[in-house]
Amino acid sequence: MSALSLALKSTCKCPMVFAQRIAVPCHRQKVNRRFAHQQKYVPRRAMLYVPGDSEKKIHKISTLDVDCAVMDCEDGVALNKKKEARETIASVLSEGKYDFGRTERGVRCNQVTSGFAEDDFKVLFGAKVVPDLLLVPKVDTVDEMEWIADKLKVYLGERQMGAPLNLIFQIESAIGLINLHQIILKGLEKSEDGVFHLTGIMFGSDDFCANIGASRTLDAYELTYVRQKIVVHAKAYNLQAIDMVQINFKDLNALREQSLQGSRMGFTGKQVIHPNQVAVVQTAFSPSEEQIQWATEMIEAFNEHQKSGKGAFVFRGVMIDMPSVLQARNIVQLVQELDLIPPKQI
Amino acid sequence: MSALSLALKSTCKCPMVFAQRIAVPCHRQKVNRRFAHQQKYVPRRAMLYVPGDSEKKIHKISTLDVDCAVMDCEDGVALNKKKEARETIASVLSEGKYDFGRTERGVRCNQVTSGFAEDDFKVLFGAKVVPDLLLVPKVDTVDEMEWIADKLKVYLGERQMGAPLNLIFQIESAIGLINLHQIILKGLEKSEDGVFHLTGIMFGSDDFCANIGASRTLDAYELTYVRQKIVVHAKAYNLQAIDMVQINFKDLNALREQSLQGSRMGFTGKQVIHPNQVAVVQTAFSPSEEQIQWATEMIEAFNEHQKSGKGAFVFRGVMIDMPSVLQARNIVQLVQELDLIPPKQI
Amino acid sequence: MSALSLALKSTCKCPMVFAQRIAVPCHRQKVNRRFAHQQKYVPRRAMLYVPGDSEKKIHKISTLDVDCAVMDCEDGVALNKKKEARETIASVLSEGKYDFGRTERGVRCNQVTSGFAEDDFKVLFGAKVVPDLLLVPKVDTVDEMEWIADKLKVYLGERQMGAPLNLIFQIESAIGLINLHQIILKGLEKSEDGVFHLTGIMFGSDDFCANIGASRTLDAYELTYVRQKIVVHAKAYNLQAIDMVQINFKDLNALREQSLQGSRMGFTGKQVIHPNQVAVVQTAFSPSEEQIQWATEMIEAFNEHQKSGKGAFVFRGVMIDMPSVLQARNIVQLVQELDLIPPKQI
Repeated sequence: MSALSLALKSTCKCPMVFAQRIAVPCHRQKVNRRFAHQQKYVPRRAMLYVPGDSEKKIHKISTLDVDCAVMDCEDGVALNKKKEARETIASVLSEGKYDFGRTERGVRCNQVTSGFAEDDFKVLFGAKVVPDLLLVPKVDTVDEMEWIADKLKVYLGERQMGAPLNLIFQIESAIGLINLHQIILKGLEKSEDGVFHLTGIMFGSDDFCANIGASRTLDAYELTYVRQKIVVHAKAYNLQAIDMVQINFKDLNALREQSLQGSRMGFTGKQVIHPNQVAVVQTAFSPSEEQIQWATEMIEAFNEHQKSGKGAFVFRGVMIDMPSVLQARNIVQLVQELDLIPPKQI
Repeated sequence: MSALSLALKSTCKCPMVFAQRIAVPCHRQKVNRRFAHQQKYVPRRAMLYVPGDSEKKIHKISTLDVDCAVMDCEDGVALNKKKEARETIASVLSEGKYDFGRTERGVRCNQVTSGFAEDDFKVLFGAKVVPDLLLVPKVDTVDEMEWIADKLKVYLGERQMGAPLNLIFQIESAIGLINLHQIILKGLEKSEDGVFHLTGIMFGSDDFCANIGASRTLDAYELTYVRQKIVVHAKAYNLQAIDMVQINFKDLNALREQSLQGSRMGFTGKQVIHPNQVAVVQTAFSPSEEQIQWATEMIEAFNEHQKSGKGAFVFRGVMIDMPSVLQARNIVQLVQELDLIPPKQI
Repeated sequence: MSALSLALKSTCKCPMVFAQRIAVPCHRQKVNRRFAHQQKYVPRRAMLYVPGDSEKKIHKISTLDVDCAVMDCEDGVALNKKKEARETIASVLSEGKYDFGRTERGVRCNQVTSGFAEDDFKVLFGAKVVPDLLLVPKVDTVDEMEWIADKLKVYLGERQMGAPLNLIFQIESAIGLINLHQIILKGLEKSEDGVFHLTGIMFGSDDFCANIGASRTLDAYELTYVRQKIVVHAKAYNLQAIDMVQINFKDLNALREQSLQGSRMGFTGKQVIHPNQVAVVQTAFSPSEEQIQWATEMIEAFNEHQKSGKGAFVFRGVMIDMPSVLQARNIVQLVQELDLIPPKQI
């Protein structure tokens, strides 16, 4: 694929601001520049929930080639199994019993206001080995983000870590959506302190529907506002945006359609609740062969036209100028970021 | 329907926060907790406008089995009939001429800035019997909400009331939508004082369209943002959300589709402008037999699985955990709230 | 068309607040009332980009009967042609070489943070004749709006102008959308100073898609939130709202559909990148014969009913009251505003 490498090379030479997957001009990156240089892009096209109280299911993670596994202490665990879940996760990580391979090791604690969260933190972050990623459900207020930072400081204590803990929070209520911007700003402020690294926002669709009394059809038209608002807020601050779950895990065609819809909206990944959903979702959130070819050829054509002093030009019947080129560069960059994990053909 | 009563019983025993139709954790209810304990849920699936100057049409209300009737002083009344409208409503209520049955007796005043509103207040709230509900159209600013509270204090005066006057306001302009959050907060603050009880937000679609220069198609795609933003803001503060009018009153199939769409989005009711629309709308905003059966069976299954220590389980081919259960409980609770008024079969 | 003139006449006599295309009650107009009296409505149904470095294409503008032409220094111009572009535009305007007829003469500078913008301002506003309209791309922050005002003050200097320079800015990123309200308020504040007259907001869809990692389908469902949020914010402050570009310039049917969709949402015009798109777009953003007839007849009927003391009435099977009348008046007013430029039949 020499056209691709050519395109990549030429974008690097370009004097214009380089377009990232989430293209953010320099003056906007201030808030989390500190981590931008430390961290490589971690793809989370699929984030798979695994009940934290099932060592058997945790064991199975390594066979699934999933970007991120979330060992759950919250809704996937019965009330009388909360203790078992957090202790199982802590011991599995600390004893290094299983090889998770390239899969990011995440945990989901219980809601800050549930009465379970502090025990989750105590056990999970007091263990010998801590997870790569913390997912916090149902974050509704700025105070809860403050609480997360305070408690992580307490329980991670003086521990030396190579990189700060990745943090993603879930928006699952109307009030959470209203407070979203303030929660993000607080999370970025706390990220500056270095206890955690806010890396994404996740949409918890089913709790959100319960909260506002909505029910969703297959195309989820009812959730247009919330999904698109979350994407805009995530991308404004260089964060990943993780789309809703498809709980009907047997209908893979519906899953594919919904995944592609989310990807087109700007989501970077999706929650899954069954191993069979992983491959479909990870493919849907990867550029297709056609897209890669379109992008590389168009960037080449653009570079040629720039040299000859032409700003706008026609490519495959469409008028191309800078914005289209930025979109092509997004694709090329994502291919680079995913290059160790080529999408499976389904 | 013993499965239903069983489900209800078991939810009451559940140690988790009880999911309301609008599920709001305790720490968010502070603003209107005062009324939460005083007031039973008042369904407003259909809110029917009746011209205030037509005693004949007011008389007819009692025959319509409608949740809420709004005797209108505003757009349904000609400029030269404003006086007649407010006086007719005041005398009908005060003389107790008609039995409205279970129907809530609402009035709509004119816009605060119209020059008519103070006279409306003077006549309507100076009368011997005052309405149950005040609907204020075209609220654009926080100042207008303040005006409403101030004037109600003046005109309700020292009157002893069993419960505060229910208040719903209409969002009908772009600037009103931009100010929505602040208007709600002011309304809740004033509710704390006890003059009125802010209970809902209504979307005035046709004035809104005129204000932004929009026109709406049957599926109202053009109004996605405004409708869904209103629902989110209403539900964040435990308020009802009342959807737009269908002015083509002869097409009941279109009305049913639009009502179901609004209900799926999270609206709790809808404005109607013709008696023929009442039954269709009230049915659309009530749970169907299938939904009730699904909900009760699923809650039973969930309770069984919790006891046996299982957090997530498969029900009718779908992965169920807490969020789906919350949605089922919404349905069961709404059935309870509506139990005196079973939906008509159409 | 005597029905039309009758309708117009009778609306003028109406004691109610007159409904504008963007109907804004008086108490909301404070911020830009100053210009409201100075300026006649300038239609910008189509805004055509023309590369600033191509005098040949600039010459062609006068043959196109387009509402507004935007001579471009930004994305339509290659990096090594920026200087040529701004100098060509300045000389074309100053020498008065071409008669632009009724077409508004606009220019697009480069992004404030690009390093090119100050040179653009220096050349374009230091010239003998300045453009009618300045379009500023990718405005992301309040500071950028402040910069625009400051620099315009510097480069327009003591120049005597008949009317302030019209200003439109483009929202093309997630952070720009988040800051939109503050940017507008700053723009209106600066408009009060009289250096420029903020007159519209434009949606830069393709840069926006690149910024949030979205890709758009033909119906642009993915952009529902951003498009509708922009319309609401524009109309709340009496500004024009200019919709996205259709870069596939050969498919005029798709263009017509997309234009009509934007018009229904409340956009007042659309960007075009090819002369063939002008007529389709200008027609789509003009009232149709059917709409004009509907509006004039309905206003007549309304006036009759008002006189006879009837507020709501049935017209063509639909219940009519004030909101529908306001929509009809919008149409009638737009016909007036466009009367010198009747839409071409296509």
